[in-house]
Amino acid sequence: MPVFEIHARSSETKARAGVLATAHGPVKTPVFMPVGTLGTVKAVSPEELLACGAQMILGNTYHLYLRPGCEIIEAFGGLHGFMNWHRPILTDSGGFQIYSLAKMAKITENGYAFQSHIDGSSHLITPEDAVDIQLRLNSDILMCLDQCISHPATEKQAEAAHHLTVSWAQRCREKWDRADTAGNLLFGIVQGGMYPHLRRLSAEALAEIDFPGYAVGGLSVGEPREMMHETAQYTLPLLPDEKPRYVMGVGRPGDLVEMVGFGADMFDCVMPTRNARNGQLFTAEGTVNINNARFRADTESIEPECTCYTCCSYSRAYLHHLYRNRELLAYRLNTIHNLHYYTRLMAQMREAIQENRFSAFRREFYRRRGVDTP
Amino acid sequence: MPVFEIHARSSETKARAGVLATAHGPVKTPVFMPVGTLGTVKAVSPEELLACGAQMILGNTYHLYLRPGCEIIEAFGGLHGFMNWHRPILTDSGGFQIYSLAKMAKITENGYAFQSHIDGSSHLITPEDAVDIQLRLNSDILMCLDQCISHPATEKQAEAAHHLTVSWAQRCREKWDRADTAGNLLFGIVQGGMYPHLRRLSAEALAEIDFPGYAVGGLSVGEPREMMHETAQYTLPLLPDEKPRYVMGVGRPGDLVEMVGFGADMFDCVMPTRNARNGQLFTAEGTVNINNARFRADTESIEPECTCYTCCSYSRAYLHHLYRNRELLAYRLNTIHNLHYYTRLMAQMREAIQENRFSAFRREFYRRRGVDTP
Repeated sequence: MPVFEIHARSSETKARAGVLATAHGPVKTPVFMPVGTLGTVKAVSPEELLACGAQMILGNTYHLYLRPGCEIIEAFGGLHGFMNWHRPILTDSGGFQIYSLAKMAKITENGYAFQSHIDGSSHLITPEDAVDIQLRLNSDILMCLDQCISHPATEKQAEAAHHLTVSWAQRCREKWDRADTAGNLLFGIVQGGMYPHLRRLSAEALAEIDFPGYAVGGLSVGEPREMMHETAQYTLPLLPDEKPRYVMGVGRPGDLVEMVGFGADMFDCVMPTRNARNGQLFTAEGTVNINNARFRADTESIEPECTCYTCCSYSRAYLHHLYRNRELLAYRLNTIHNLHYYTRLMAQMREAIQENRFSAFRREFYRRRGVDTP
Repeated sequence: MPVFEIHARSSETKARAGVLATAHGPVKTPVFMPVGTLGTVKAVSPEELLACGAQMILGNTYHLYLRPGCEIIEAFGGLHGFMNWHRPILTDSGGFQIYSLAKMAKITENGYAFQSHIDGSSHLITPEDAVDIQLRLNSDILMCLDQCISHPATEKQAEAAHHLTVSWAQRCREKWDRADTAGNLLFGIVQGGMYPHLRRLSAEALAEIDFPGYAVGGLSVGEPREMMHETAQYTLPLLPDEKPRYVMGVGRPGDLVEMVGFGADMFDCVMPTRNARNGQLFTAEGTVNINNARFRADTESIEPECTCYTCCSYSRAYLHHLYRNRELLAYRLNTIHNLHYYTRLMAQMREAIQENRFSAFRREFYRRRGVDTP
């Protein structure tokens, strides 16, 4: 069975629907992966993730490497056993978090030298280490160590980061080839900032190395939203068509709709979970803040059409009450609704692609929000 | 069907096992009620409460009266619909919380005048109001407004509080008689401080008024543990034998074992839930703190013999990791284990009473903890 099979394509857009085979089972695409930074998707249990329709989750290598540490997770045969989630897991390489969280991070040809943001301890992570750590976590999909740059970046900075990322991708691939893997897949990450010719060079160089899948990195790093869409729209078709394409760290519901139309298959973002903890709930008509006083006596559910546990069991008034009083159940119920919203959106897109009505779906998506465009 | 039926009695102690009939179904006694102050038992869902073996929960009238307010809860037909818990609920009268939380609380013959601890707004709650509020919440068991005193209190203070409590109990009973109740039961509360003759006078006066059940209040208010046990041991047999007896705000596992032996049927306490959120987990061998570094790499469950969701699914190392990182799931998993521990303890006592081996059960309870006495 091939790693990725495309079962349907939209004739008016580049959207496609497929199935990605992993060591922990198949994943229907397009797919959204909830973020489980520290071996838990914040506020929800594995059973609730499944009930929300989650197929695959993301773990953060940098965080897990520091806490609890690979040797602990290895004692459980990997992250699945440690956290009691027995479906597919993708881990990032840690590069982005070292860059954004660690202290005194220093990047050299050899890798990242940094100090833990928790206890200040010194660490060095090479591309080979990044693969090794992710194999110890037994991730279904490993990501190559890359150099992510913020926006704006000069062309020279972007070019240097692209070169380093490609050279590290080669080293990751070699490490992965030598390793005794159990079906763990390694994805390459395209960098190149907002420079189209660098994105092209990066995509071509990675395709040359040959990976089971590819990601577009370096988005959502401070650039305007339109530029993010343009860069993704330009970059995605440069990636091998028959391979899964993952847009990292994106995004808002409208971003997902646009990117699927550009040919993206996989996404991750903290937005549904983080916003839930801030009282922001997603609905087909847009977002609402459950803290708003207008929900105080509202006996309706958040979204009457929604079939999530929260909407089937609780009113806006109750969620408002829980949130106002910072009750722990508030974070859970909000998170369940938002994750369900995201996975349902992906399932609706998949269905629309299979029935070749993705453009109509997109128009209706914006119509219900009362806007014309992303 | 009578409100309370005693099905078995221990021949060596005063322990009894029975069934309490409520408008939302039967409750097997002895029973422990998890505390759901604000319309949620902190960190767990109603489904998890059921899975933990909870039969009845407690709501705090003072808190719910202030937030979200009776009119909101009434719109859901009561607290059950508001919070999606469709089993029995007991509410306290609010007196203890006004006394301990409200600002500028002033007690008169007429009731409590106080200012909200949230927004400083002024309120007056009479005994009649306390019954009315609890009926609006549609509690299965209402408690009379009482005056709780701290320890130590002079005999004069204790006597005055006892007199006021009895006079209010009479007014509550009259209000309840006039009300259009749907099977809601009203319990009287015995006060009298640590003075046996006052406890006796209080119990006799309340029995005279005649309630479907009786509570021993004014325990766990600062007195030594031995004195709490002595007062309960003295007071419980003074209450009508055929009625349910509820010891309010108690307690530790050993307290429950002792009090059941003295003839108590019902308990509530924040200990299993609050301690869970502080990382303290109950086991048959005593309590453990999951934060302790010795659990860092421990692949065992908290209590290998325990059948709760937490013990069936997660290791000590994972719980340690979640708690150390203050992950929201930590509070839930710890709470589930502790509530399950408490309900299992009650179920074991019930079984021991039914098989007339309660004294042996009590000895074994202390033996496993490595101690001889409470």
